[in-house]
Amino acid sequence: MFSLTLTSVLKNNFRIKSCYFSTNLLRMSKTACVILADGAEEMEFVIAADILRRTGINVTVAGLSGDEPTDFDVIVMPGGLGGSKAMASSSLVGEILKRQESGGRFIAAICAAPIALKSHGIANGKKITSYPSFKNDLCEAYCYDDQSKVVQDGQLITSRGPATAFDFGLKIASALAGEDKAKEVAKAMLIQ
Amino acid sequence: MFSLTLTSVLKNNFRIKSCYFSTNLLRMSKTACVILADGAEEMEFVIAADILRRTGINVTVAGLSGDEPTDFDVIVMPGGLGGSKAMASSSLVGEILKRQESGGRFIAAICAAPIALKSHGIANGKKITSYPSFKNDLCEAYCYDDQSKVVQDGQLITSRGPATAFDFGLKIASALAGEDKAKEVAKAMLIQ
Repeated sequence: MFSLTLTSVLKNNFRIKSCYFSTNLLRMSKTACVILADGAEEMEFVIAADILRRTGINVTVAGLSGDEPTDFDVIVMPGGLGGSKAMASSSLVGEILKRQESGGRFIAAICAAPIALKSHGIANGKKITSYPSFKNDLCEAYCYDDQSKVVQDGQLITSRGPATAFDFGLKIASALAGEDKAKEVAKAMLIQ
Repeated sequence: MFSLTLTSVLKNNFRIKSCYFSTNLLRMSKTACVILADGAEEMEFVIAADILRRTGINVTVAGLSGDEPTDFDVIVMPGGLGGSKAMASSSLVGEILKRQESGGRFIAAICAAPIALKSHGIANGKKITSYPSFKNDLCEAYCYDDQSKVVQDGQLITSRGPATAFDFGLKIASALAGEDKAKEVAKAMLIQ
Protein backbone atom coordinates (compact mmCIF):
# COMPACT_ATOMS: atom_id res chain seq x y z
CA MET A 1 0.00 0.00 0.00
CA PHE A 2 2.68 2.46 0.90
CA SER A 3 4.19 2.42 -2.55
CA LEU A 4 0.92 3.18 -4.37
CA THR A 5 0.89 6.58 -6.06
CA LEU A 6 -2.12 8.86 -5.71
CA THR A 7 -2.87 8.31 -9.40
CA SER A 8 -2.90 4.54 -9.10
CA VAL A 9 -5.12 4.79 -6.05
CA LEU A 10 -7.58 7.07 -7.84
CA LYS A 11 -7.95 4.34 -10.46
CA ASN A 12 -9.21 2.01 -7.74
CA ASN A 13 -12.33 2.21 -5.62
CA PHE A 14 -12.98 4.41 -2.62
CA ARG A 15 -12.30 1.65 -0.15
CA ILE A 16 -8.74 1.40 -1.35
CA LYS A 17 -8.45 5.16 -1.70
CA SER A 18 -9.53 5.79 1.86
CA CYS A 19 -7.19 3.05 3.03
CA TYR A 20 -4.36 4.77 1.19
CA PHE A 21 -5.09 8.09 2.82
CA SER A 22 -5.31 6.51 6.25
CA THR A 23 -1.95 4.82 6.02
CA ASN A 24 -0.49 7.93 4.45
CA LEU A 25 -1.85 10.04 7.29
CA LEU A 26 -0.47 7.62 9.84
CA ARG A 27 2.92 7.77 8.21
CA MET A 28 2.86 11.58 8.03
CA SER A 29 1.64 12.29 11.58
CA LYS A 30 4.71 13.65 13.34
CA THR A 31 4.93 14.49 17.03
CA ALA A 32 6.53 17.33 18.96
CA CYS A 33 7.07 17.88 22.66
CA VAL A 34 7.41 21.55 23.59
CA ILE A 35 8.85 21.92 27.08
CA LEU A 36 7.20 24.65 29.15
CA ALA A 37 9.18 25.46 32.30
CA ASP A 38 8.47 28.34 34.69
CA GLY A 39 10.20 31.41 33.31
CA ALA A 40 9.92 30.38 29.67
CA GLU A 41 9.74 33.20 27.12
CA GLU A 42 6.03 33.06 26.28
CA MET A 43 6.40 34.34 22.70
CA GLU A 44 8.98 31.71 21.81
CA PHE A 45 6.86 28.99 23.39
CA VAL A 46 3.60 30.00 21.70
CA ILE A 47 5.08 30.75 18.28
CA ALA A 48 6.83 27.36 18.10
CA ALA A 49 3.83 25.40 19.37
CA ASP A 50 1.35 27.29 17.17
CA ILE A 51 3.41 26.94 13.99
CA LEU A 52 3.85 23.20 14.57
CA ARG A 53 0.11 22.77 15.15
CA ARG A 54 -0.64 24.75 11.98
CA THR A 55 1.71 22.32 10.22
CA GLY A 56 -0.41 19.38 11.36
CA ILE A 57 2.16 18.11 13.85
CA ASN A 58 0.80 16.57 17.03
CA VAL A 59 2.11 18.93 19.75
CA THR A 60 2.38 17.94 23.41
CA VAL A 61 3.19 20.64 25.95
CA ALA A 62 5.20 19.15 28.83
CA GLY A 63 6.23 20.55 32.20
CA LEU A 64 9.29 19.52 34.18
CA SER A 65 7.61 17.15 36.63
CA GLY A 66 5.95 13.78 36.27
CA ASP A 67 6.94 10.72 34.30
CA GLU A 68 9.30 10.72 31.37
CA PRO A 69 7.19 11.02 28.24
CA THR A 70 7.15 8.71 25.24
CA ASP A 71 9.38 9.42 22.28
CA PHE A 72 8.66 12.40 20.04
CA ASP A 73 10.00 13.33 16.63
CA VAL A 74 11.25 16.61 18.09
CA ILE A 75 11.88 18.04 21.55
CA VAL A 76 11.45 21.84 21.42
CA MET A 77 12.97 24.09 24.10
CA PRO A 78 11.79 27.73 24.21
CA GLY A 79 14.12 30.30 25.76
CA GLY A 80 13.65 32.72 28.62
CA LEU A 81 16.42 32.76 31.22
CA GLY A 82 14.39 31.25 34.08
CA GLY A 83 12.95 28.46 31.94
CA SER A 84 16.31 27.68 30.36
CA LYS A 85 18.06 27.46 33.72
CA ALA A 86 15.29 25.16 34.96
CA MET A 87 15.74 22.90 31.91
CA ALA A 88 19.53 23.00 32.34
CA SER A 89 19.27 21.73 35.91
CA SER A 90 16.49 19.17 35.34
CA SER A 91 17.70 15.56 35.30
CA LEU A 92 14.43 14.60 33.55
CA VAL A 93 15.20 17.00 30.69
CA GLY A 94 18.73 15.56 30.59
CA GLU A 95 17.40 11.99 30.24
CA ILE A 96 14.92 13.01 27.54
CA LEU A 97 17.57 14.87 25.54
CA LYS A 98 20.08 12.01 25.75
CA ARG A 99 17.49 9.48 24.58
CA GLN A 100 16.42 11.87 21.82
CA GLU A 101 20.01 12.30 20.65
CA SER A 102 20.89 8.59 20.78
CA GLY A 103 17.68 7.84 18.87
CA GLY A 104 18.74 10.21 16.09
CA ARG A 105 15.66 12.38 16.51
CA PHE A 106 15.37 16.19 16.39
CA ILE A 107 16.20 18.57 19.22
CA ALA A 108 15.39 22.30 18.85
CA ALA A 109 16.42 25.11 21.21
CA ILE A 110 16.06 28.90 20.94
CA CYS A 111 17.38 31.97 22.77
CA ALA A 112 18.79 30.96 26.20
CA ALA A 113 17.70 27.31 25.86
CA PRO A 114 20.97 26.08 24.26
CA ILE A 115 22.54 26.39 27.75
CA ALA A 116 20.45 23.32 28.62
CA LEU A 117 22.10 21.44 25.74
CA LYS A 118 25.52 22.24 27.14
CA SER A 119 24.50 21.44 30.71
CA HIS A 120 23.39 17.94 29.67
CA GLY A 121 26.32 17.32 27.32
CA ILE A 122 24.16 17.23 24.19
CA ALA A 123 25.41 17.69 20.62
CA ASN A 124 28.97 18.64 21.57
CA GLY A 125 30.94 20.14 18.72
CA LYS A 126 27.91 20.80 16.56
CA LYS A 127 27.14 24.11 14.87
CA ILE A 128 24.68 26.17 16.94
CA THR A 129 23.44 29.67 17.66
CA SER A 130 21.65 31.25 20.66
CA TYR A 131 20.68 34.59 22.18
CA PRO A 132 23.87 36.64 21.70
CA SER A 133 24.65 37.08 25.41
CA PHE A 134 25.16 33.29 25.77
CA LYS A 135 27.83 33.09 23.08
CA ASN A 136 30.68 33.03 25.59
CA ASP A 137 29.06 30.20 27.56
CA LEU A 138 28.63 28.10 24.44
CA CYS A 139 31.47 28.81 22.05
CA GLU A 140 33.90 26.32 23.59
CA ALA A 141 31.59 23.30 23.48
CA TYR A 142 30.05 24.19 20.13
CA CYS A 143 30.87 25.69 16.76
CA TYR A 144 29.09 29.02 17.31
CA ASP A 145 27.33 30.83 14.45
CA ASP A 146 26.36 34.42 15.28
CA GLN A 147 25.26 35.38 11.79
CA SER A 148 22.28 33.08 11.12
CA LYS A 149 18.74 33.44 12.45
CA VAL A 150 18.38 29.65 12.60
CA VAL A 151 21.10 27.00 12.42
CA GLN A 152 20.47 23.37 11.53
CA ASP A 153 23.25 20.83 12.01
CA GLY A 154 21.84 17.37 11.37
CA GLN A 155 19.07 16.74 13.90
CA LEU A 156 19.90 19.86 15.93
CA ILE A 157 18.05 23.15 15.27
CA THR A 158 18.94 26.31 17.21
CA SER A 159 17.90 29.95 16.96
CA ARG A 160 18.53 33.35 18.54
CA GLY A 161 15.50 35.00 20.19
CA PRO A 162 11.94 36.34 19.91
CA ALA A 163 12.58 38.04 16.56
CA THR A 164 13.72 34.72 15.04
CA ALA A 165 11.01 32.55 16.60
CA PHE A 166 8.97 32.37 13.38
CA ASP A 167 12.05 31.22 11.44
CA PHE A 168 12.77 28.71 14.21
CA GLY A 169 9.25 27.23 14.17
CA LEU A 170 9.22 27.07 10.39
CA LYS A 171 12.61 25.33 10.25
CA ILE A 172 11.29 22.62 12.59
CA ALA A 173 8.09 22.41 10.52
CA SER A 174 10.18 22.01 7.37
CA ALA A 175 12.37 19.33 8.95
CA LEU A 176 9.34 17.29 10.04
CA ALA A 177 6.76 17.96 7.33
CA GLY A 178 8.76 19.15 4.34
CA GLU A 179 9.58 22.52 2.84
CA ASP A 180 6.37 22.82 0.81
CA LYS A 181 4.18 22.40 3.90
CA ALA A 182 6.30 24.90 5.84
CA LYS A 183 5.96 27.41 3.00
CA GLU A 184 2.17 26.95 3.00
CA VAL A 185 2.04 27.61 6.76
CA ALA A 186 4.32 30.65 6.39
CA LYS A 187 2.11 32.09 3.64
CA ALA A 188 -1.04 31.79 5.79
CA MET A 189 0.78 33.74 8.52
CA LEU A 190 1.68 36.42 5.92
CA ILE A 191 5.41 35.70 6.09
CA GLN A 192 6.94 36.70 2.79
CA MET B 1 9.79 67.21 41.53
CA PHE B 2 8.58 66.31 38.08
CA SER B 3 10.95 68.66 36.36
CA LEU B 4 14.10 67.30 38.03
CA THR B 5 16.52 65.74 35.60
CA LEU B 6 18.22 62.45 36.40
CA THR B 7 21.51 64.31 36.79
CA SER B 8 20.13 66.77 39.32
CA VAL B 9 18.59 63.89 41.25
CA LEU B 10 21.86 62.00 41.36
CA LYS B 11 23.40 65.04 43.02
CA ASN B 12 20.90 64.71 45.83
CA ASN B 13 20.42 62.00 48.45
CA PHE B 14 18.78 58.60 47.98
CA ARG B 15 15.54 59.66 49.64
CA ILE B 16 14.97 62.32 47.00
CA LYS B 17 16.25 60.03 44.28
CA SER B 18 13.84 57.30 45.17
CA CYS B 19 11.02 59.82 45.42
CA TYR B 20 11.88 61.07 41.96
CA PHE B 21 11.79 57.59 40.51
CA SER B 22 8.45 56.88 42.18
CA THR B 23 6.74 59.94 40.82
CA ASN B 24 8.39 59.39 37.45
CA LEU B 25 7.17 55.81 37.41
CA LEU B 26 3.68 56.93 38.34
CA ARG B 27 3.62 59.45 35.53
CA MET B 28 4.96 56.93 33.03
CA SER B 29 2.83 53.95 33.98
CA LYS B 30 0.46 53.40 31.05
CA THR B 31 -2.21 50.73 31.00
CA ALA B 32 -3.35 48.26 28.35
CA CYS B 33 -6.27 45.88 28.24
CA VAL B 34 -5.69 42.93 25.90
CA ILE B 35 -8.94 41.15 25.15
CA LEU B 36 -8.66 37.35 25.12
CA ALA B 37 -11.74 35.69 23.63
CA ASP B 38 -12.10 31.98 22.85
CA GLY B 39 -10.63 31.39 19.42
CA ALA B 40 -8.07 34.20 19.63
CA GLU B 41 -4.85 33.72 17.64
CA GLU B 42 -2.48 32.81 20.46
CA MET B 43 0.63 34.25 18.81
CA GLU B 44 -0.97 37.64 18.23
CA PHE B 45 -2.28 37.72 21.81
CA VAL B 46 1.01 36.72 23.44
CA ILE B 47 3.27 38.86 21.25
CA ALA B 48 1.21 42.01 21.91
CA ALA B 49 0.88 41.36 25.66
CA ASP B 50 4.55 40.40 26.07
CA ILE B 51 5.89 43.40 24.14
CA LEU B 52 3.71 45.79 26.15
CA ARG B 53 4.90 44.23 29.42
CA ARG B 54 8.53 44.48 28.26
CA THR B 55 7.78 48.15 27.62
CA GLY B 56 6.73 48.62 31.23
CA ILE B 57 3.06 49.04 30.42
CA ASN B 58 0.61 47.63 32.94
CA VAL B 59 -1.20 44.90 30.96
CA THR B 60 -4.56 43.48 31.96
CA VAL B 61 -5.86 40.43 30.13
CA ALA B 62 -9.66 40.52 29.95
CA GLY B 63 -12.23 37.94 28.89
CA LEU B 64 -15.67 38.69 27.47
CA SER B 65 -17.72 38.15 30.61
CA GLY B 66 -17.98 40.03 33.88
CA ASP B 67 -18.14 43.71 34.63
CA GLU B 68 -17.00 46.43 32.30
CA PRO B 69 -13.42 47.28 33.26
CA THR B 70 -11.99 50.64 34.16
CA ASP B 71 -10.47 52.86 31.48
CA PHE B 72 -7.18 51.86 29.86
CA ASP B 73 -4.78 53.82 27.69
CA VAL B 74 -5.22 51.19 24.97
CA ILE B 75 -7.64 48.39 24.20
CA VAL B 76 -5.82 45.67 22.22
CA MET B 77 -7.73 43.11 20.12
CA PRO B 78 -5.78 40.08 18.86
CA GLY B 79 -7.08 38.30 15.77
CA GLY B 80 -8.12 34.73 15.15
CA LEU B 81 -11.46 34.23 13.41
CA GLY B 82 -13.30 32.74 16.39
CA GLY B 83 -12.07 35.35 18.82
CA SER B 84 -12.76 38.21 16.42
CA LYS B 85 -16.33 37.04 15.74
CA ALA B 86 -16.87 36.76 19.51
CA MET B 87 -15.62 40.34 20.00
CA ALA B 88 -17.74 41.53 17.07
CA SER B 89 -20.91 40.15 18.65
CA SER B 90 -20.15 41.14 22.26
CA SER B 91 -22.15 44.12 23.50
CA LEU B 92 -19.61 44.54 26.33
CA VAL B 93 -16.79 44.91 23.78
CA GLY B 94 -18.99 47.40 21.89
CA GLU B 95 -19.50 49.52 25.03
CA ILE B 96 -15.79 49.44 25.88
CA LEU B 97 -14.75 50.44 22.35
CA LYS B 98 -17.29 53.29 22.17
CA ARG B 99 -16.13 54.67 25.52
CA GLN B 100 -12.50 54.29 24.44
CA GLU B 101 -13.15 56.15 21.20
CA SER B 102 -15.17 58.97 22.77
CA GLY B 103 -12.42 59.33 25.40
CA GLY B 104 -9.82 59.82 22.69
CA ARG B 105 -7.81 56.83 23.85
CA PHE B 106 -6.05 54.16 21.75
CA ILE B 107 -7.70 51.15 20.12
CA ALA B 108 -5.54 48.49 18.44
CA ALA B 109 -6.74 45.55 16.34
CA ILE B 110 -4.83 42.96 14.28
CA CYS B 111 -5.65 40.29 11.71
CA ALA B 112 -9.41 39.48 11.80
CA ALA B 113 -10.08 41.75 14.79
CA PRO B 114 -10.91 44.88 12.72
CA ILE B 115 -14.25 43.18 11.89
CA ALA B 116 -15.15 43.93 15.53
CA LEU B 117 -14.45 47.63 14.89
CA LYS B 118 -16.88 47.60 11.98
CA SER B 119 -19.50 45.61 13.87
CA HIS B 120 -19.54 48.19 16.68
CA GLY B 121 -19.37 51.23 14.36
CA ILE B 122 -15.93 52.31 15.59
CA ALA B 123 -13.56 54.64 13.73
CA ASN B 124 -15.64 54.84 10.54
CA GLY B 125 -13.75 56.31 7.60
CA LYS B 126 -10.35 55.94 9.21
CA LYS B 127 -7.35 54.38 7.51
CA ILE B 128 -6.94 50.72 8.53
CA THR B 129 -5.51 47.38 7.52
CA SER B 130 -6.34 43.75 8.45
CA TYR B 131 -5.72 40.13 7.45
CA PRO B 132 -6.06 40.30 3.65
CA SER B 133 -9.15 38.10 3.41
CA PHE B 134 -11.20 40.69 5.35
CA LYS B 135 -10.45 43.52 2.95
CA ASN B 136 -13.82 43.20 1.17
CA ASP B 137 -15.69 43.29 4.48
CA LEU B 138 -13.91 46.46 5.57
CA CYS B 139 -13.12 48.56 2.52
CA GLU B 140 -16.51 50.33 2.39
CA ALA B 141 -16.52 51.53 5.99
CA TYR B 142 -12.80 52.33 6.09
CA CYS B 143 -9.96 53.66 3.97
CA TYR B 144 -8.21 50.30 3.45
CA ASP B 145 -4.41 50.07 3.23
CA ASP B 146 -3.15 46.71 1.96
CA GLN B 147 0.49 47.70 1.65
CA SER B 148 1.53 48.50 5.24
CA LYS B 149 2.33 46.03 8.01
CA VAL B 150 0.87 48.41 10.60
CA VAL B 151 -1.37 51.43 10.05
CA GLN B 152 -1.83 54.22 12.58
CA ASP B 153 -4.56 56.79 12.05
CA GLY B 154 -4.77 58.99 15.13
CA GLN B 155 -5.66 56.78 18.09
CA LEU B 156 -6.39 53.74 15.90
CA ILE B 157 -3.67 51.14 15.24
CA THR B 158 -4.34 48.15 12.97
CA SER B 159 -2.20 45.38 11.53
CA ARG B 160 -2.35 42.32 9.27
CA GLY B 161 -1.52 38.98 10.91
CA PRO B 162 0.95 36.79 12.82
CA ALA B 163 3.93 37.90 10.73
CA THR B 164 3.23 41.56 11.58
CA ALA B 165 2.45 41.01 15.27
CA PHE B 166 5.87 42.26 16.43
CA ASP B 167 5.44 45.48 14.39
CA PHE B 168 1.92 45.82 15.83
CA GLY B 169 3.06 45.43 19.44
CA LEU B 170 5.95 47.81 18.93
CA LYS B 171 3.73 50.45 17.32
CA ILE B 172 1.45 50.38 20.38
CA ALA B 173 4.52 50.48 22.63
CA SER B 174 5.81 53.49 20.73
CA ALA B 175 2.45 55.27 20.92
CA LEU B 176 2.25 54.80 24.69
CA ALA B 177 5.87 54.93 25.84
CA GLY B 178 7.71 56.72 23.05
CA GLU B 179 9.83 55.63 20.11
CA ASP B 180 13.07 55.36 22.10
CA LYS B 181 11.57 52.92 24.58
CA ALA B 182 10.02 50.87 21.75
CA LYS B 183 13.41 50.72 20.02
CA GLU B 184 15.05 49.52 23.23
CA VAL B 185 12.44 46.75 23.58
CA ALA B 186 12.86 45.79 19.90
CA LYS B 187 16.64 45.57 20.28
CA ALA B 188 16.36 43.21 23.28
CA MET B 189 14.13 40.94 21.15
CA LEU B 190 16.82 41.04 18.40
CA ILE B 191 14.61 42.95 15.96
CA GLN B 192 16.84 44.88 13.61
